[in-house]
Amino acid sequence: MSQPPLSSTPRTALHRGRHRGVHDRDALHAVLDAGRICHLGVIVDDVPRVIPTSYGRIGDTLYVHGSTGARSLREAPGREVCVTVTHLDGIVLGRSVFHHSVNYRSAMIYGTPRRVTDPEEKLAGLRAIVEQLAPGQWDAARPPNRKELAATAVLAIPLDEASVKIRQGPPVDEEEDYSLNVWAGVLPVRQVFDQPVPDPRLRPGIPVPRRIAALAADGEP
Amino acid sequence: MSQPPLSSTPRTALHRGRHRGVHDRDALHAVLDAGRICHLGVIVDDVPRVIPTSYGRIGDTLYVHGSTGARSLREAPGREVCVTVTHLDGIVLGRSVFHHSVNYRSAMIYGTPRRVTDPEEKLAGLRAIVEQLAPGQWDAARPPNRKELAATAVLAIPLDEASVKIRQGPPVDEEEDYSLNVWAGVLPVRQVFDQPVPDPRLRPGIPVPRRIAALAADGEP
Repeated sequence: MSQPPLSSTPRTALHRGRHRGVHDRDALHAVLDAGRICHLGVIVDDVPRVIPTSYGRIGDTLYVHGSTGARSLREAPGREVCVTVTHLDGIVLGRSVFHHSVNYRSAMIYGTPRRVTDPEEKLAGLRAIVEQLAPGQWDAARPPNRKELAATAVLAIPLDEASVKIRQGPPVDEEEDYSLNVWAGVLPVRQVFDQPVPDPRLRPGIPVPRRIAALAADGEP
Repeated sequence: MSQPPLSSTPRTALHRGRHRGVHDRDALHAVLDAGRICHLGVIVDDVPRVIPTSYGRIGDTLYVHGSTGARSLREAPGREVCVTVTHLDGIVLGRSVFHHSVNYRSAMIYGTPRRVTDPEEKLAGLRAIVEQLAPGQWDAARPPNRKELAATAVLAIPLDEASVKIRQGPPVDEEEDYSLNVWAGVLPVRQVFDQPVPDPRLRPGIPVPRRIAALAADGEP
């Protein structure tokens, strides 16, 4: 149970502030690019709110979006938020309950969101969000019209302050516990895509795009 | 991109306040019990912090734990926090980029954590956390000793104020878009367990417990 599994005693901890090295930046980008959803933490009425939402990245800017009517997004600009992306990679089974843990990759970003008003950047941010969910879809589907764009708020969060934590590998038990007659190891966890399910109202004769079928085929989101 | 995919226009939204019906309570328990990690939102220095961590449930109490030295947990008791558990179930591919979305199940809990001091409840809470990660492990592994227990803080969060949001099913497109020559449907996503990986230091002759092997075999975490 290693206190808590996900935020302490990581095997590898890359803490990245401003102007840190390329290695840390690459690790941050890798964790973000491998994800589909983030958890956005905002403060509403002095209480934290943790909202699962989709996101996209362009360079060192993270984009999230929401309805222009959503209070949590309306109030977000100008106040620092926290965005966390977590990949669960395995359950770590130690010889003691205390050394149970998880293998994971996690990025935690602190930043003050900026409401995107430039039409070009807004489109680019939305494109990044849709492409993060399903690559190739921005060009395949109907682009947003003026009304849809007006109903959508896009926030930009700089990746200046972020930390990456990664735990990998077997359990780390107390030395005297290695002689116990208890199985120990890792139960790997991963996300997979199953075969695409066509919309019941899909017009006949439209095949599943190859790039979507390929995602399911290799099983790796 | 339905603004944002994960927090608006859900197909099914169950909002549960105090003393709501059994149906909502069951939905909340089901979402929590199917998860392995949550995202815990706390306020530290007036800034939200979103921490991935493990958790357990006993009845209508959620338990999380951490090092007694962790500031985010030390400061949590007495101040309202938010805990979110999210399952990503599918990528929803609409005929317009605007109606791209995700299928998901999500529980959002607001509550004021109580630091657990009663030794019996503390053990029960820790057991719930370990069992949530890997059922059967509490009895299989060495129990925590006095020193380990002293180093571990356990917080109890009541499930009185919680909401469950679920989106399932195909995209919901604009009526005029159904005639477009664009594939639409859902790309299902799920978590699977792979075959357990023994600790390199595992003593010879200790087999993988059947309950752990079974998790990998059926592929459903």
